[in-house]
Amino acid sequence: MTAPYKAPLRDMEFLFFELFDGAAISELEGYEDAEPETVKAILEEAAKFAENVYLPLNQSGDAQGCRLENGVVTVPDGFKEAYAQFREAGWNSVTEDPEYGGMGLPYSVSIMISEMWASSNQSLAMYAGLTHGAAKAVSARGTDEQKALYLPKFADGSWSGTMCLTEAQCGTDLGLIQTKAAKNDNGSYSITGTKIFISAGDHEMTDNVIHLVLARLDDAPAGIKGITMFVVPKYRINDDGSIGERNGVSTGAIEHKMGINGNATCVINLDEAEGYMVGTENKGMQAMFVMMNSARLGTGLQGIAAGEQSYQGAVAYAKDRIQMRSLTGPKSPVQKADPIIVHADVRRMLLTMRAYTEGTRALTYWIAQELDHHSKNPDAERREEADDLASLLTPVIKAFNTDVGFESTNHGVQIFGGHGYISEHGMEQFVRDARIAQLYEGTNGIQALDLVGRKMHMHGGRLMKRFFDPLRSYLETESQNVEMSEFITPLSTAFKHLEQATGWIASNAPKNPDHLGGASVDYLRIFGLVSVGYMWARMAKLSMANQDSEDFYRAKIKTARFYMQKLLPQTESLLTSLQAGSDSLMDYDEAYF
Amino acid sequence: MTAPYKAPLRDMEFLFFELFDGAAISELEGYEDAEPETVKAILEEAAKFAENVYLPLNQSGDAQGCRLENGVVTVPDGFKEAYAQFREAGWNSVTEDPEYGGMGLPYSVSIMISEMWASSNQSLAMYAGLTHGAAKAVSARGTDEQKALYLPKFADGSWSGTMCLTEAQCGTDLGLIQTKAAKNDNGSYSITGTKIFISAGDHEMTDNVIHLVLARLDDAPAGIKGITMFVVPKYRINDDGSIGERNGVSTGAIEHKMGINGNATCVINLDEAEGYMVGTENKGMQAMFVMMNSARLGTGLQGIAAGEQSYQGAVAYAKDRIQMRSLTGPKSPVQKADPIIVHADVRRMLLTMRAYTEGTRALTYWIAQELDHHSKNPDAERREEADDLASLLTPVIKAFNTDVGFESTNHGVQIFGGHGYISEHGMEQFVRDARIAQLYEGTNGIQALDLVGRKMHMHGGRLMKRFFDPLRSYLETESQNVEMSEFITPLSTAFKHLEQATGWIASNAPKNPDHLGGASVDYLRIFGLVSVGYMWARMAKLSMANQDSEDFYRAKIKTARFYMQKLLPQTESLLTSLQAGSDSLMDYDEAYF
Repeated sequence: MTAPYKAPLRDMEFLFFELFDGAAISELEGYEDAEPETVKAILEEAAKFAENVYLPLNQSGDAQGCRLENGVVTVPDGFKEAYAQFREAGWNSVTEDPEYGGMGLPYSVSIMISEMWASSNQSLAMYAGLTHGAAKAVSARGTDEQKALYLPKFADGSWSGTMCLTEAQCGTDLGLIQTKAAKNDNGSYSITGTKIFISAGDHEMTDNVIHLVLARLDDAPAGIKGITMFVVPKYRINDDGSIGERNGVSTGAIEHKMGINGNATCVINLDEAEGYMVGTENKGMQAMFVMMNSARLGTGLQGIAAGEQSYQGAVAYAKDRIQMRSLTGPKSPVQKADPIIVHADVRRMLLTMRAYTEGTRALTYWIAQELDHHSKNPDAERREEADDLASLLTPVIKAFNTDVGFESTNHGVQIFGGHGYISEHGMEQFVRDARIAQLYEGTNGIQALDLVGRKMHMHGGRLMKRFFDPLRSYLETESQNVEMSEFITPLSTAFKHLEQATGWIASNAPKNPDHLGGASVDYLRIFGLVSVGYMWARMAKLSMANQDSEDFYRAKIKTARFYMQKLLPQTESLLTSLQAGSDSLMDYDEAYF
Repeated sequence: MTAPYKAPLRDMEFLFFELFDGAAISELEGYEDAEPETVKAILEEAAKFAENVYLPLNQSGDAQGCRLENGVVTVPDGFKEAYAQFREAGWNSVTEDPEYGGMGLPYSVSIMISEMWASSNQSLAMYAGLTHGAAKAVSARGTDEQKALYLPKFADGSWSGTMCLTEAQCGTDLGLIQTKAAKNDNGSYSITGTKIFISAGDHEMTDNVIHLVLARLDDAPAGIKGITMFVVPKYRINDDGSIGERNGVSTGAIEHKMGINGNATCVINLDEAEGYMVGTENKGMQAMFVMMNSARLGTGLQGIAAGEQSYQGAVAYAKDRIQMRSLTGPKSPVQKADPIIVHADVRRMLLTMRAYTEGTRALTYWIAQELDHHSKNPDAERREEADDLASLLTPVIKAFNTDVGFESTNHGVQIFGGHGYISEHGMEQFVRDARIAQLYEGTNGIQALDLVGRKMHMHGGRLMKRFFDPLRSYLETESQNVEMSEFITPLSTAFKHLEQATGWIASNAPKNPDHLGGASVDYLRIFGLVSVGYMWARMAKLSMANQDSEDFYRAKIKTARFYMQKLLPQTESLLTSLQAGSDSLMDYDEAYF
């Protein structure tokens, strides 16, 4: 049995076209093809593909996992065929550059599609997802020759890509990378080292696997400023572009892990593997960040996807499973007990899942449209504004989405009771699969440090003003609107907490940087709660104007109300904890632990 | 590799003898043998056994799991031998009645030992744990003949026991049980039905498996008042007590589940199995609760055990793993990076784990001593007081301990970063194993309903007064003590939140019972936070008096400080959420979900 999943198309269209300005996206030069009707048609096709091709392999892929035998990685049954269908349907090419065979759709459209892939089968989705990251790096930093060689293959999915960053001794701290790159006479490099935790690291689903590898040149400076990016194919590529002999790249092991078992997480051994520099010597970290920012939003998306998937499973169960009577008397007297959806606490869990999922979806889709403006808007000031907002909110989206997504999957299990713990129902897989998103692409603690340590002060606080000023104006304007007061009053309170938290950090961190580290995670959560609260207020307002037309809008208003009453108040306690500072953390002798 | 585990003997002795009055326990009639030196010696032996016999099988047991082949259940390699050693060492008999071969140790001693079993190998520990539950039921409700037959076998571990409650259509709602019992001419009963989720349900480690089964007599009234308890052995027992032929009991399947893979969770088919009534017709629920209350505390213990185990793994890693520099400059300049324990956020996670683990341990050990007074104290008033406290706090201990225990195991994974997700390190197993404790023995939502719906009003609020009055006096007395103000001020605030939450429920639930259900989980968490806060204040005070003698006490004071500053403030937001009521939950059309 696989938990049900229907792509939330109505919510996607609501956000893309109604809450945000999807029509304006198709007016940007280069995105002319993304007309509303086209976007809707693409979303419908993606939904069918996710529901019919990806979803049926989600649970079996988890149960079966990947194998490494005689140096060959085998993915779960059905994955290879599904990936071939995916390729044939052209889904690899969605956002790739039309110059190299891509469809060139806006990022804000692709993210809706990617959400469906992740909800229906996160492990399988990651093979194409990583390829897209590799394409971004080559596209941004590669030579014209590299682009011509790799990008068409990434766009048609015949080759896949990976990101090879982590080594046993370094994850967060990439300055500790030891993989070496020695220059060859022909201009290529010999790369030697061992990379670990390489998602989609090896498989036989594509003709080649192209690794983007961070390594250190012989004479490179120590630390983070001595890292260079290389492209290292699994099979060498002949001059005519055909597949040549095996490069010095092999899979040393597949990791056994908590979840995403359908994705081959590999140890990749590089043994004088032939590679080619991407971008400039010792500027590998910058090249890597091109992939990383997009990967962080993509990871945030996985939090939404997990929440959606688990919510749908939990709602179906809560309507079907009968157990106990409602505290206010039987609601289904013909049955021996009431469906558990009558119980207040079951509703609390369902609404928590829903309010987080739809709220983080709104936040993420908003920023995705901003990124499209950043790419294509003719107005330089508008581009800068969009970039500022996206830079500021990327760590929030990565960490907050995945934290609440993980919480949601746990509520999903709890609603199932003991049955939630049994693999058959699929609910526990969502927990295990969702857990990785809090860890990879920079742990959520690192996201919090990025927010308070970098983004907060960047350009003299300009990024913060981009978010705070419009929100402040919004609250001022809407505070005049009596109908909106049930949303605006709690949001204003939470926003005040965010301002106080910001002020506390601004006054205290300069005195003691540990205050920054100690406050960071609480701060990011306040930021996430307020950002999502802002989305819920806007969604409620728009829905009030339309509430006579559809249940959809009436449900939105009620979910917004729940969020304001039951979830947003967390900011209060978080502020108290944050303001307590870091002395209780740092003034604790290491020997006492 | 297995995560390290050393039994926290110093903390156990601190709680048992110093914070609470372990010496007074040995003065109770029947517990004379539990002299301090004896207790310490037993704890040391148990620690060795847990560390040397149980622990090495924890990770391999998870990886291997149980199998069902040709009707025979096989446990992981090494479990049978370890269980045999456990039996031979006499550990099964710890709390069993001396009249039937038990050691008759106080419950408050046994709980410390059980914690070590659960930390070192929860799956393996459950086989003996369930047997103990079965022994309690037979002891409380069985005939003299049944006691003489079963109790010595349970005490020496040659037979094991199970609790067969759940069926596919009923978990929480046992009134829906369909298993039938028909009276035979010889006074026995023929039991037919299918039970699911039977922990330790079948295996070959003991000569017999004795099932305590809830079933319905032919003429039983519908619902919960028509349930009777039966004892149903896997093998019939001959008149001379020897093992006879197979009874109509078979294992239909072993569940595949998220964790506790070393424990065989069975579907048990009863096909005209011969059984014997335990206790009275149609009073099976009362007999079941004898097992259940003890099982709930035992489950709460698993939350502590998981937190301890994960904390020890995380501390070892945080001191060893080097990554990045401290924000205040290098702390280990000879290394290429600092150990991650220098980072404020890593410390926040470690201290969260520690403060919850040690705090819930204190709460649980306190109530365990109260239960011993309930059993043996000659003063009827003292017995009643003890029973009141234990009844009130059992749902809190079950739910709060396991919620924060699960949170702790997730912090443990997060501290490991990506390595936490990899099975090899063992940290992700703790998450999967800990997750069950929030679900079984009554989900944590059911515990919350038990607290607000039953315990709060029991005996006209007498249980609540037993807890609130002494705590109020304590806060009043200690508020005079300047040295204690850093602990007493936040605890008084949190206690006020608890009082306000209690008042809100008292005024609103009578108007609308859904307010009870909607508030229950927030309320239980406030209750847990305050109870554990009370423990931390008491631990801090005692430790201040001894702080010159040992690091142990100095660490306690600092952990108490952390708890008050960083964790206890949660009560504030929980109160706001609770006071928002349940309208946002219930006024949400079912069709909108």
